[in-house]
Amino acid sequence: MVDIATRVYNHKWKIDPIVRSLIDTDFYKLLMCQSVFRNKPQTDVVFSLINRSNHIPLAELVDEGELREQLDHIRSLGLSRGESTWLRGNTFYGKRQMFRPDFMEWFENLRLPPYHLERKGDQYELTFEGKWHEVMLWEIPALAVLMELRSRAVLDQMRRFELQVLYARAMTRVWEKIEKLREIDGLSIADFGTRRRHSFLWQDWCVQAMIEGLGSAFTGTSNCLIAMRREVEAIGTNAHELPMVYCALAETDEELAKAPYDVLSDWHEEHEGNLRIILPDTYGTKGFLAHAPDWLAGWTGVRVDSGDPAEGAEIAIGWWKSRGEDPMQKRIIFSDALDVDKIVELHARFSGRAKVSFGWGTLLTNDFRGLVPDDRLAPFSLVCKAAAANGKPTVKLSDNPEKAMGPEDEIERYKRVFHVGKQAAIKVEV
Amino acid sequence: MVDIATRVYNHKWKIDPIVRSLIDTDFYKLLMCQSVFRNKPQTDVVFSLINRSNHIPLAELVDEGELREQLDHIRSLGLSRGESTWLRGNTFYGKRQMFRPDFMEWFENLRLPPYHLERKGDQYELTFEGKWHEVMLWEIPALAVLMELRSRAVLDQMRRFELQVLYARAMTRVWEKIEKLREIDGLSIADFGTRRRHSFLWQDWCVQAMIEGLGSAFTGTSNCLIAMRREVEAIGTNAHELPMVYCALAETDEELAKAPYDVLSDWHEEHEGNLRIILPDTYGTKGFLAHAPDWLAGWTGVRVDSGDPAEGAEIAIGWWKSRGEDPMQKRIIFSDALDVDKIVELHARFSGRAKVSFGWGTLLTNDFRGLVPDDRLAPFSLVCKAAAANGKPTVKLSDNPEKAMGPEDEIERYKRVFHVGKQAAIKVEV
Repeated sequence: MVDIATRVYNHKWKIDPIVRSLIDTDFYKLLMCQSVFRNKPQTDVVFSLINRSNHIPLAELVDEGELREQLDHIRSLGLSRGESTWLRGNTFYGKRQMFRPDFMEWFENLRLPPYHLERKGDQYELTFEGKWHEVMLWEIPALAVLMELRSRAVLDQMRRFELQVLYARAMTRVWEKIEKLREIDGLSIADFGTRRRHSFLWQDWCVQAMIEGLGSAFTGTSNCLIAMRREVEAIGTNAHELPMVYCALAETDEELAKAPYDVLSDWHEEHEGNLRIILPDTYGTKGFLAHAPDWLAGWTGVRVDSGDPAEGAEIAIGWWKSRGEDPMQKRIIFSDALDVDKIVELHARFSGRAKVSFGWGTLLTNDFRGLVPDDRLAPFSLVCKAAAANGKPTVKLSDNPEKAMGPEDEIERYKRVFHVGKQAAIKVEV
Repeated sequence: MVDIATRVYNHKWKIDPIVRSLIDTDFYKLLMCQSVFRNKPQTDVVFSLINRSNHIPLAELVDEGELREQLDHIRSLGLSRGESTWLRGNTFYGKRQMFRPDFMEWFENLRLPPYHLERKGDQYELTFEGKWHEVMLWEIPALAVLMELRSRAVLDQMRRFELQVLYARAMTRVWEKIEKLREIDGLSIADFGTRRRHSFLWQDWCVQAMIEGLGSAFTGTSNCLIAMRREVEAIGTNAHELPMVYCALAETDEELAKAPYDVLSDWHEEHEGNLRIILPDTYGTKGFLAHAPDWLAGWTGVRVDSGDPAEGAEIAIGWWKSRGEDPMQKRIIFSDALDVDKIVELHARFSGRAKVSFGWGTLLTNDFRGLVPDDRLAPFSLVCKAAAANGKPTVKLSDNPEKAMGPEDEIERYKRVFHVGKQAAIKVEV
């Protein structure tokens, strides 16, 4: 029997919305948003889309009208009662009422601010301007929309059984990865794949497959909506945008040098335990840790997000030792360009020397490499970053010069202020 | 939204029936049934299940109660109005009203006769006794039920995502076969996989995948229900049971020697064109063709169903030439233990020398080899054959001594009467 009501209801949709909830976003965005809401509520920022894989002609692949429809739909979203209840009532990282009443009240009334979209050749210029805590919530849905519209453009040309077999192959691939991960004793892994996922439904499938296939080794997902629906932990702490904006706001070189530690000082006041995770690579891991205040060595762990991950982990372990800390009591979270082989390798190398976790992103939720002709579903490196704060440009260096961003002269200034020497380049693929 | 009515309706089923229609059977069964109904309506036969893969402990795997429920359900089935309309109104092999009004009237009122089921060690003894044209319709559903109950017993222990990935792998495998077949120029292939299918839904999926993937190279399915629903041709002609029963009824060696030709003589009167396909291997292809009457050389083709298929085809081609026929005007249908490599090989060897077709069975609709631990979903060789007619045992020799069946002394007698010499044994797997 056909459920006529459901069919009719579906026909009412003008579009098939990609993002259907304001919490279809990364958990750390909400944590950072609350921190910004509290500490930097008057900051104006510009977030901007950057396609690091500029061989992908996004504007050729994705129709501008459809993109606008999807973005407009996101602007129509408000927090639902159930979502608000989940955020208010849930225990995150063992803590109740992680989100404070004044923040929740603001969030419940939030609609995302306008966007600016313009086609430039075969790429889109997509920017968001406004108060930092509002604009920042555009990053994840904007990326997810672009990634999924690109997937849809390719899938649109495929027939029914071709599609089914495509997903059969992709499912088999994910499952074979899970089967390999299952062999790792003491594994701790989470889904970090929202922003560059193939599609929402696919990410949701991957999370469910991880739940069944990995059991307690799967610690949760960064995606709040999926965490809520699948009843798993929402995972995440903080990201580069905090030091990037704090640094852009610095007036002098002295303030600039201090700014990344100010970020963590604010965070220190707000959070404890497993949320005290250092992200040290924004302006070079080595220099950041060498000049860090002692209280930072008391934090729970580090997240290694660029450069050679083994090197980053060795630096952290050496740093803890130099500050009299026991690395076995610390957590190292790897989250950059992971796939199964690298996870196996990193786990084998570090699991006896520290607590090790993995935040698995694009190659979990978007590994369609080689599954269609011309690899037109292969993931690519799309980001949406804070480009300016109160009119001043931001800079990111990271541990890989290929990921550096900002004006040339500012990059040089930051390199000098943060004592960043020569860095090894690593090709950015996802 | 949940379609509550559908959910409630589904809950009303006491079981999940495997065979839900009397035409969920092979088309040639209906053709032969009509022939028997007309020519041998007073013949009493016994059909009997034979598990040629006796390392598979069917009675351990399949619960007797569940088996009885499924068989009882089949006995409750009658031809639906739409099914009857399809049989009466359809064009089969270019001919309207293939099924005559008196046969249809009888079929519309048919319920299948009782079965006899007994557990013997780790196998089942399953027999059907009664009038030939009634009993013969048990063969396909009985096999399909046993095959699917065995699949279900294995699947029952698997979890949700394991199941989905199992089917993802199986779909990928079928699709890769289809992709290889697509490269064969002038291919003509049909689904013959009803009897030993993994499940009904799986066969239905395979047929749909063939429709999309092969286009006009896919000529249809032997399964009437699927042919009706998917709007493709129903394919099939005749099978070994005709000569087996005709031979068992023969009183003397002379009558025995003549009986296989009597079968085709009756068929000759009833059918023309593409339905005039010789199945020459019941008592050895070579002797059968050597002693065949000249009018048989005028038939449209042969079906090669046992022994070395290339050898069988060479014998047929040589025979046509010896009778002054042009093999290029004849059709050779290969239907024994086919998989893609063999299809590619046979097509390459014979497509320039005759019209070539393939009836692809078990390795289309049940290739789950290697997909679960201990290969517990691998297909196996289960058959259901006419064992006796009017109290006398039947005999089958075929072109492979491994497939011979009947009492030892009768096998020897048949070998003598049909001039069957030494035969090469080929392992029977599916």
